[in-house]
Amino acid sequence: MTDPIEIQRYDHDPQMPRADLVYTFGGHEPVAQVRPGSVVSTWTRDAFNGSISHRDTTASDVLDARYLNPQTGPFHVEGAEPGDTLAVHFVSITPREDWGVSTTVPFFGSLTTTPRTAGLQAALAQQTWIYAIDRGRGVVRYEARDSSYAVDLPLDPMHGTVGVAPSLGEVRTSLTPGAFGGNMDTPEMRSGVTCYLGVNVPGALLSLGDGHARQGEGETCGVAVETAMDTVFVVDLIKGVETPWPRLENDDFVMSAGSARPLDDAFRISQYDMVMWVSGSLGLSHLDAYQLVTQTVLSPVANVVDTDYTVVAKVAKTYLTGFDAYQGMHARMRAIAAAVT
Amino acid sequence: MTDPIEIQRYDHDPQMPRADLVYTFGGHEPVAQVRPGSVVSTWTRDAFNGSISHRDTTASDVLDARYLNPQTGPFHVEGAEPGDTLAVHFVSITPREDWGVSTTVPFFGSLTTTPRTAGLQAALAQQTWIYAIDRGRGVVRYEARDSSYAVDLPLDPMHGTVGVAPSLGEVRTSLTPGAFGGNMDTPEMRSGVTCYLGVNVPGALLSLGDGHARQGEGETCGVAVETAMDTVFVVDLIKGVETPWPRLENDDFVMSAGSARPLDDAFRISQYDMVMWVSGSLGLSHLDAYQLVTQTVLSPVANVVDTDYTVVAKVAKTYLTGFDAYQGMHARMRAIAAAVT
Amino acid sequence: MTDPIEIQRYDHDPQMPRADLVYTFGGHEPVAQVRPGSVVSTWTRDAFNGSISHRDTTASDVLDARYLNPQTGPFHVEGAEPGDTLAVHFVSITPREDWGVSTTVPFFGSLTTTPRTAGLQAALAQQTWIYAIDRGRGVVRYEARDSSYAVDLPLDPMHGTVGVAPSLGEVRTSLTPGAFGGNMDTPEMRSGVTCYLGVNVPGALLSLGDGHARQGEGETCGVAVETAMDTVFVVDLIKGVETPWPRLENDDFVMSAGSARPLDDAFRISQYDMVMWVSGSLGLSHLDAYQLVTQTVLSPVANVVDTDYTVVAKVAKTYLTGFDAYQGMHARMRAIAAAVT
Amino acid sequence: MTDPIEIQRYDHDPQMPRADLVYTFGGHEPVAQVRPGSVVSTWTRDAFNGSISHRDTTASDVLDARYLNPQTGPFHVEGAEPGDTLAVHFVSITPREDWGVSTTVPFFGSLTTTPRTAGLQAALAQQTWIYAIDRGRGVVRYEARDSSYAVDLPLDPMHGTVGVAPSLGEVRTSLTPGAFGGNMDTPEMRSGVTCYLGVNVPGALLSLGDGHARQGEGETCGVAVETAMDTVFVVDLIKGVETPWPRLENDDFVMSAGSARPLDDAFRISQYDMVMWVSGSLGLSHLDAYQLVTQTVLSPVANVVDTDYTVVAKVAKTYLTGFDAYQGMHARMRAIAAAVT
Repeated sequence: MTDPIEIQRYDHDPQMPRADLVYTFGGHEPVAQVRPGSVVSTWTRDAFNGSISHRDTTASDVLDARYLNPQTGPFHVEGAEPGDTLAVHFVSITPREDWGVSTTVPFFGSLTTTPRTAGLQAALAQQTWIYAIDRGRGVVRYEARDSSYAVDLPLDPMHGTVGVAPSLGEVRTSLTPGAFGGNMDTPEMRSGVTCYLGVNVPGALLSLGDGHARQGEGETCGVAVETAMDTVFVVDLIKGVETPWPRLENDDFVMSAGSARPLDDAFRISQYDMVMWVSGSLGLSHLDAYQLVTQTVLSPVANVVDTDYTVVAKVAKTYLTGFDAYQGMHARMRAIAAAVT
Repeated sequence: MTDPIEIQRYDHDPQMPRADLVYTFGGHEPVAQVRPGSVVSTWTRDAFNGSISHRDTTASDVLDARYLNPQTGPFHVEGAEPGDTLAVHFVSITPREDWGVSTTVPFFGSLTTTPRTAGLQAALAQQTWIYAIDRGRGVVRYEARDSSYAVDLPLDPMHGTVGVAPSLGEVRTSLTPGAFGGNMDTPEMRSGVTCYLGVNVPGALLSLGDGHARQGEGETCGVAVETAMDTVFVVDLIKGVETPWPRLENDDFVMSAGSARPLDDAFRISQYDMVMWVSGSLGLSHLDAYQLVTQTVLSPVANVVDTDYTVVAKVAKTYLTGFDAYQGMHARMRAIAAAVT
Repeated sequence: MTDPIEIQRYDHDPQMPRADLVYTFGGHEPVAQVRPGSVVSTWTRDAFNGSISHRDTTASDVLDARYLNPQTGPFHVEGAEPGDTLAVHFVSITPREDWGVSTTVPFFGSLTTTPRTAGLQAALAQQTWIYAIDRGRGVVRYEARDSSYAVDLPLDPMHGTVGVAPSLGEVRTSLTPGAFGGNMDTPEMRSGVTCYLGVNVPGALLSLGDGHARQGEGETCGVAVETAMDTVFVVDLIKGVETPWPRLENDDFVMSAGSARPLDDAFRISQYDMVMWVSGSLGLSHLDAYQLVTQTVLSPVANVVDTDYTVVAKVAKTYLTGFDAYQGMHARMRAIAAAVT
Repeated sequence: MTDPIEIQRYDHDPQMPRADLVYTFGGHEPVAQVRPGSVVSTWTRDAFNGSISHRDTTASDVLDARYLNPQTGPFHVEGAEPGDTLAVHFVSITPREDWGVSTTVPFFGSLTTTPRTAGLQAALAQQTWIYAIDRGRGVVRYEARDSSYAVDLPLDPMHGTVGVAPSLGEVRTSLTPGAFGGNMDTPEMRSGVTCYLGVNVPGALLSLGDGHARQGEGETCGVAVETAMDTVFVVDLIKGVETPWPRLENDDFVMSAGSARPLDDAFRISQYDMVMWVSGSLGLSHLDAYQLVTQTVLSPVANVVDTDYTVVAKVAKTYLTGFDAYQGMHARMRAIAAAVT
């Protein structure tokens, strides 16, 4: 006989003024306490906080750089201390609305000059695409603006941002990914995945947001199919185990997510972390692990548009006989998830 | 009734002195003529030309920087002119030996300083891994050097290098990828794929080599499971159609391969090319294509170790209703491949 | 008759526990108020807070990643509001001690792998160099460790870090440069220069530190000739004028300092800012300014070792007839400096 | 009594069809033989081969990508063998015309998207600036197009390209810099400098061109003040001494020029080469040299627009007591230069 699973509902006011929302990792008091092993049911706003819902809305007319990508949280995880690892397992991520939105934003995206990759050309035209979301059929519908082309794409809900308070007393905007997680924008952050994050401050201060009905790898134009989400997740702690960069695990793969510029370094971080993880867990020498990862890794790009870029290193568990990620945490969280759905 | 398919065997002397082999794209007389629509059956040496076949061999003892990655070719394709596109369809890629090899090479690979990402640290230790290749079971066997760990990995043969003579009179080594193809090192270059390359000189001067029994995405340590290959491919031409960067097509996906440093630019090239390809073929505006690619693209890294780095942009054909790549060339080449196997 | 110049002494306890010092831009209450137009006389600790003063000290034995590069400040500048520009003119920067120190630090510096440009090689050896500083002769003395070579180098004191609280509620460590200033590590930040910084929060929250007796351009090994400094500076405000990236001005040059990774983007930021500055001040079209900057700019690298890299764009005022930087602020501050020295 | 200095005039036909000119390093038969120790007097075309001489000419109307940056040469240097170093000392570089030209070129330059840093924005407007060159007064005159601003800038003639045939059988366009020299675009390549280049093929095959009446550091818009040059240089050999990357020496400084993308790696190459050069010549350990370079190096950017980017590492000889660059070659070449002018 086991303890009953605690399910905690965290709600928030849809009408809260945007200046009062949370736009950073770190720098904010927790909104709730969460006990390790418990389940949290909550929801997240879309990255534009609902301000763009019509195809005739121009992003720069309604957006304010100070109020982008509001987060739900931060949650204070009881007992979390620097040097621990926080595990977050996504039980379900479900679009709250029957629409999502993407746009071009001036000087933002991978195929334009930006304030950093600075240039003198005029901005691309601002356009908005509204996607119909059909949860029943599991599709989102792309419709071209300038022609009649339309196509259904698979619904594949995920969170662009999941993170904790950064180290060294830093506070980072929710537009930034890093060692603390944050705006990684990887489509791997879907239901069924467990995300491991190193804890930097007491309570960890977990936040999440930036729901995407789906996105391609790279989030090329800078904006996925943005939508509010109903999300259920399990939280737990691995005490005394450090996690230098975000790691993910699903039933088939273990993954590491590196974030940096240039993309080369994001790749290097993720591959290095995977080599060290494989080496440590399988008892391989560093060079043996380097070799095994070289021949087996999948390396999907996550984002090439945010403050730092993200690449994922991904190895199938079938190639890692005896690999034990965090003492079986994923399996235990899967069991909790199964029990509550 | 159709013309019989012409199958041309191109053989070469396994004992040819290494100084006489071909190590560049461009800069070499053709070794054979190939007629568009015909099938070529040939073989390629491994990247080390067989010089490393034992786990006790140290790479720097036997390798010479002038003689790395020998290519089979160049083939002069009849009628190919600058401004055309060469199509190469891989019917089969089969390891010739029952072993493959990987090594660490001093100051080469993604997790070490290199002559470009220069540094003062000592080189990593040189080690060699020999993989048993079992064509019957379709596996290659990884064996750790410093522990007893071993695991079977799926055999997935491919060519690291496929390319033509570059533009502007350049000659590039077979270690380099670029707009002319070359050392892209993408695992997508397996049997069943059609590779499209822009023609820069009369006859195109197609070469190929660098067979890999398998590799991960990124070729992290710099060396895949290198092995000699028996390869059968179909060659054809699309007259008067330019192809700015290498494109690939299989039954399920269309792809573009960008190569540059940093990896960011390789990503940008491949995504830009995919946006323009989708825009042109579906009649979408550039921004509509940018949007569609953003939500659908897969972006696997290919290599982060060569002279330039390579990323692939990859979109499922199911999202591209009515997309016609090169007037149905892939389907026609598939038919030829089916007829000869 | 003019108002007397107000000189404000800000002192701090040399024995303060290192955990109580300030290591961030933003995230800290001001330690003092400063009135625009007034002079501040203060001092700064060296980047290691005095913990490495002997050539036999090994950096990793005494350093703690949480306590690097302590700052003096932050100073609340009266009346400073977001949208204003803060001007800081350095009257004098004088080493407090007769020695400075440089070291190698594991996995830090431009000629080594780092946690971001990650790799598997062993760290470089840790060594410490102590420099004798002779203020009278104006030299610092380099002495080789492994041979008898020694040479006097010109004393050229400067501050590696000068910055304000960042925008968007961020808090950044004092190891980081950015649009808010911070750890730019440019040798241009010497006495006689005026530094212009955009204000992001009420009071601006100015801090400074990281004194260098001298450094080369790039701070190649990651550590300059670190030393505590006695520093006198003038503070003033340009109300209602924004400054997107840090700008510097001395009697001969105007400069812009861009910080990003890769270094390409730091270059682009600084050049773009210089083009816009020249365009606005001389009434040139953007392309005319682009052209003028192209033929006149000096582009010294500042750092290639910090969290972001920094490049300076620098144009001689003689080429900018009629250029008026911030309504003559530099000249006014020079006059104040002359009056107090 | 010494041998008389041999002065060799190499002339070429100003009317030669552009398709017959030389646009590559490597890949071309020598146009003349040069004896080590002799002086060559020749001239170079401007990068546009004279095709843009009016401010109303639009670059894309007259330029052809196949015919950019024609070189004078290649010269076969008698006795040069792989493993030697070629020394080229510039006695004089003098504009042949009383005008020079700069332009914007679509998708070329550092403040625009390019075919590699690809993007969807429209190209910048094409504009042409003609500079009057006044050799007597030593100035070139900038005149704005869209306003009345004009200013005299110092004449500072230099060669953007100086190079030899590359290694590994490669042929590279004259738009590319690298270990072989080529299109480095550093203003340090002025009269009075000695350039050292590693020899890769028998005869070295030296070419030069791309004269600039002056340029800023970075060649920001991609085009300096382009002009044809009368150039006199001395050629000599250092037998059996390798030079991995181009080095320069003038009376005051020794320099190394690294070329790569991103700019970070160009910086690393040049700093690494300088560290190794200083270490070898002064008998310092690598870490002592790393330290000395860190505190003394100047690091001006050269170009951020070409196929690869270039940074120079530059150390004053006064800090390098006893430094002997190539056995006194620079001093001997200075003496020859003095004797012939």
